[in-house]
Amino acid sequence: MKQITCQQTRTISERIIFDGDLNDKQTLFGGKTLSLLDENAGLASFKLVHAKIATASYDHVNFWRPITTDKYVKFESFVTGVSGRQIEVFTKVISHDLKTDITEVAFTSFCTLVVLRSAQQIELPELVPETDEEKYLCAGFADRLAAREEERSNKDDFLSHLTLD
Amino acid sequence: MKQITCQQTRTISERIIFDGDLNDKQTLFGGKTLSLLDENAGLASFKLVHAKIATASYDHVNFWRPITTDKYVKFESFVTGVSGRQIEVFTKVISHDLKTDITEVAFTSFCTLVVLRSAQQIELPELVPETDEEKYLCAGFADRLAAREEERSNKDDFLSHLTLD
Amino acid sequence: MKQITCQQTRTISERIIFDGDLNDKQTLFGGKTLSLLDENAGLASFKLVHAKIATASYDHVNFWRPITTDKYVKFESFVTGVSGRQIEVFTKVISHDLKTDITEVAFTSFCTLVVLRSAQQIELPELVPETDEEKYLCAGFADRLAAREEERSNKDDFLSHLTLD
Amino acid sequence: MKQITCQQTRTISERIIFDGDLNDKQTLFGGKTLSLLDENAGLASFKLVHAKIATASYDHVNFWRPITTDKYVKFESFVTGVSGRQIEVFTKVISHDLKTDITEVAFTSFCTLVVLRSAQQIELPELVPETDEEKYLCAGFADRLAAREEERSNKDDFLSHLTLD
Amino acid sequence: MKQITCQQTRTISERIIFDGDLNDKQTLFGGKTLSLLDENAGLASFKLVHAKIATASYDHVNFWRPITTDKYVKFESFVTGVSGRQIEVFTKVISHDLKTDITEVAFTSFCTLVVLRSAQQIELPELVPETDEEKYLCAGFADRLAAREEERSNKDDFLSHLTLD
Amino acid sequence: MKQITCQQTRTISERIIFDGDLNDKQTLFGGKTLSLLDENAGLASFKLVHAKIATASYDHVNFWRPITTDKYVKFESFVTGVSGRQIEVFTKVISHDLKTDITEVAFTSFCTLVVLRSAQQIELPELVPETDEEKYLCAGFADRLAAREEERSNKDDFLSHLTLD
Repeated sequence: MKQITCQQTRTISERIIFDGDLNDKQTLFGGKTLSLLDENAGLASFKLVHAKIATASYDHVNFWRPITTDKYVKFESFVTGVSGRQIEVFTKVISHDLKTDITEVAFTSFCTLVVLRSAQQIELPELVPETDEEKYLCAGFADRLAAREEERSNKDDFLSHLTLD
Repeated sequence: MKQITCQQTRTISERIIFDGDLNDKQTLFGGKTLSLLDENAGLASFKLVHAKIATASYDHVNFWRPITTDKYVKFESFVTGVSGRQIEVFTKVISHDLKTDITEVAFTSFCTLVVLRSAQQIELPELVPETDEEKYLCAGFADRLAAREEERSNKDDFLSHLTLD
Repeated sequence: MKQITCQQTRTISERIIFDGDLNDKQTLFGGKTLSLLDENAGLASFKLVHAKIATASYDHVNFWRPITTDKYVKFESFVTGVSGRQIEVFTKVISHDLKTDITEVAFTSFCTLVVLRSAQQIELPELVPETDEEKYLCAGFADRLAAREEERSNKDDFLSHLTLD
Repeated sequence: MKQITCQQTRTISERIIFDGDLNDKQTLFGGKTLSLLDENAGLASFKLVHAKIATASYDHVNFWRPITTDKYVKFESFVTGVSGRQIEVFTKVISHDLKTDITEVAFTSFCTLVVLRSAQQIELPELVPETDEEKYLCAGFADRLAAREEERSNKDDFLSHLTLD
Repeated sequence: MKQITCQQTRTISERIIFDGDLNDKQTLFGGKTLSLLDENAGLASFKLVHAKIATASYDHVNFWRPITTDKYVKFESFVTGVSGRQIEVFTKVISHDLKTDITEVAFTSFCTLVVLRSAQQIELPELVPETDEEKYLCAGFADRLAAREEERSNKDDFLSHLTLD
Repeated sequence: MKQITCQQTRTISERIIFDGDLNDKQTLFGGKTLSLLDENAGLASFKLVHAKIATASYDHVNFWRPITTDKYVKFESFVTGVSGRQIEVFTKVISHDLKTDITEVAFTSFCTLVVLRSAQQIELPELVPETDEEKYLCAGFADRLAAREEERSNKDDFLSHLTLD
């Protein structure tokens, strides 16, 4: 079975924060962050396997600290788990204050992507964590996967309570 | 104590799906959905209280079915829980197939927003669900809140495992 | 002949106004409004008939009151007339002041869309207004249609005065 | 009284049409055109007077011919009437087919802008048409102004029929 | 051999500068200018020949003076040289101060585009400068072309020093 | 005097190429590349010094190979020279073919940014190249700087040939 390290899927995007990136008087940064998040996490999954991939779910999406125009940010994503056709990608956003040089974790999330079925069978490679951070995050994959599967198993019940108007 | 119904916070945005809204050969819709989601959920929270509000976290973010250009979508958000300075907003995206007239729930999520501290104290109104859908979703608020508080309580441990490079 | 109510074509999009949505020192909102207008009106026409449709003209496009970042807006469109291959869609923008809770009609317009010719004949449904607002707006359709047809009949004369440099 | 020629207010923007500029399978170009229109017409009014100006209304907005990616377009705006604090700007869009070299008028509209009240009084210059096209369009200003004033005089009646829900 | 004047390739785009067009506290205008530059220069080359054309290089790209929201700008591009499958396009940005009526050259650049190879041979027309400005710029083409060819001839050496990590 | 390594200014942005990023039938990528280039190069200069910085010029801007949707790209910028208030930033774009795993240098450029004058004097740090690539690029700085200074010294003559219409 082919192996791939977390490091080989690592995807980075550094960005200056402009005034126009901040919504509503500098407090509602969510939409822009979420959009960049999805692109960065998607690219990490493409480095694992070249196939048609769709975003299936997000969880543990936390905005830990506000991001302001005194800071630049680094989006960093890498794969933290593989199971069947599912790929889990962790993303953290590190903010760097240009005045004080203080760096902080501003945002983290886990995203699950799914390799779409196709004629030819795709076997995903085995994932190999190397650093302490990678090992810690990959170690939690089984629990997060189980929680997601429980949520998916309640899907029909959950959706049955929603109206379609 | 002031009361407000879920219905009074309900926020709707209907959208045609254009080719340019779909990323990478019609499969990676996540980023656009997430950006519209944040704007629609934010407006629902503004209807509850007029204050500075920031997105704190997302959970149970599920892409249940693909959205394609044969469909139009309706984003529908409303408040499903209030606790201290926290506001929980539920959003569903209903897709409507223009050819077959079939409607489906394509996406759901819960978002937590926080009223930012300010000089004057803000008391959030009491939330009153009326329909079966509203009652079902509000009934789950206490459990979701508890899960979030547990996640927040592990924040320092979780962040301590992440590098700041 | 198939019937459809105005209500069945009603299309809603609610939006927060961000600083970046306002051009040139908060006064020139036109471009953004016009772009959202066209998308919302287009979707109302899609609810009447699923076919290739193109915007043909706008008239009675009035910016009644300025829209500012203290407000959120609701775009609301519905079909107000059908004749041959033409569909008339009315759009109003209601602004809601977040501080004072005052709502106003900020903008109204009529848009005419045309179902593009295709191999198979399309018969548009008969339109049924129900509310006082719908009946009032549909009652004016014949006059607005006549004015448009007069303008279209002068098309060749009008265009003959324009240079093509 | 200061004089200004139509030519001195003439504003031009030439654009390539990209695939992404065309909505919904090449038929719904309206939104993009309307947005560029508003920017181009606004600049023509700035050339007449440097003041805070807001878009008040559009009329005679006609999409005469479809615009496709085989064409490039030229937006051309100039002032065609001045009355009190109102400025009327005419805009035409000339499309040029890159394959056949055929040029056509694809779009025309009249836009009314209003100089916002301010502490110091602003006197708008007298407008001088020179070419046949300018004279023809300026000659119709009085009639278009009268029609607009009639529409404005019915404003309260019209708005009274609209709901604010 | 077919002839074409510089004037026949001249392409103009006038733009208002909005607050949102200016990055980072009004100083980093580069990205927006560069994007409009590429579209305007591309259209000038399309007026020379209708073919698939790709941007190959930029040189002498100078931001001579800052552009601010008190100004509007005019992008003006025209072809200044043709050699084999290469087309050189000059672009200047004239800024016009709305308060003082002072106009200045804010930006200039030369761009080289290449007609992509295709089944049928394309012969580019001979370029004819008419004004003093056109003659001055076309007169420098041979030197600029020679400098570019020297740079291209060092391509392999230059690229061999770059890592591909 | 403070020292800083090229590595400390290194700025990375990895991006998936979407269909909508490619203009005009997959050939005119220039505008999007130039816009991302300016943001990435700007951030590299911010890592050298926290001050108001403006883009002054670009040179040696070469599109070496086309970028297509089968590829993802990595923008990589770092400072390659400092002189007085001028900062030179080199940017390369590495493209990675998702099917063949081939990586290539698709684009390179040098950008000069200028620290804007301010009340307090800013002394830029001394730049220390470490790798072969950094040493090679920094070694060419003096020649590039001299060429730029010659171009700037001809500025008045050059601009005197341009019309301001």
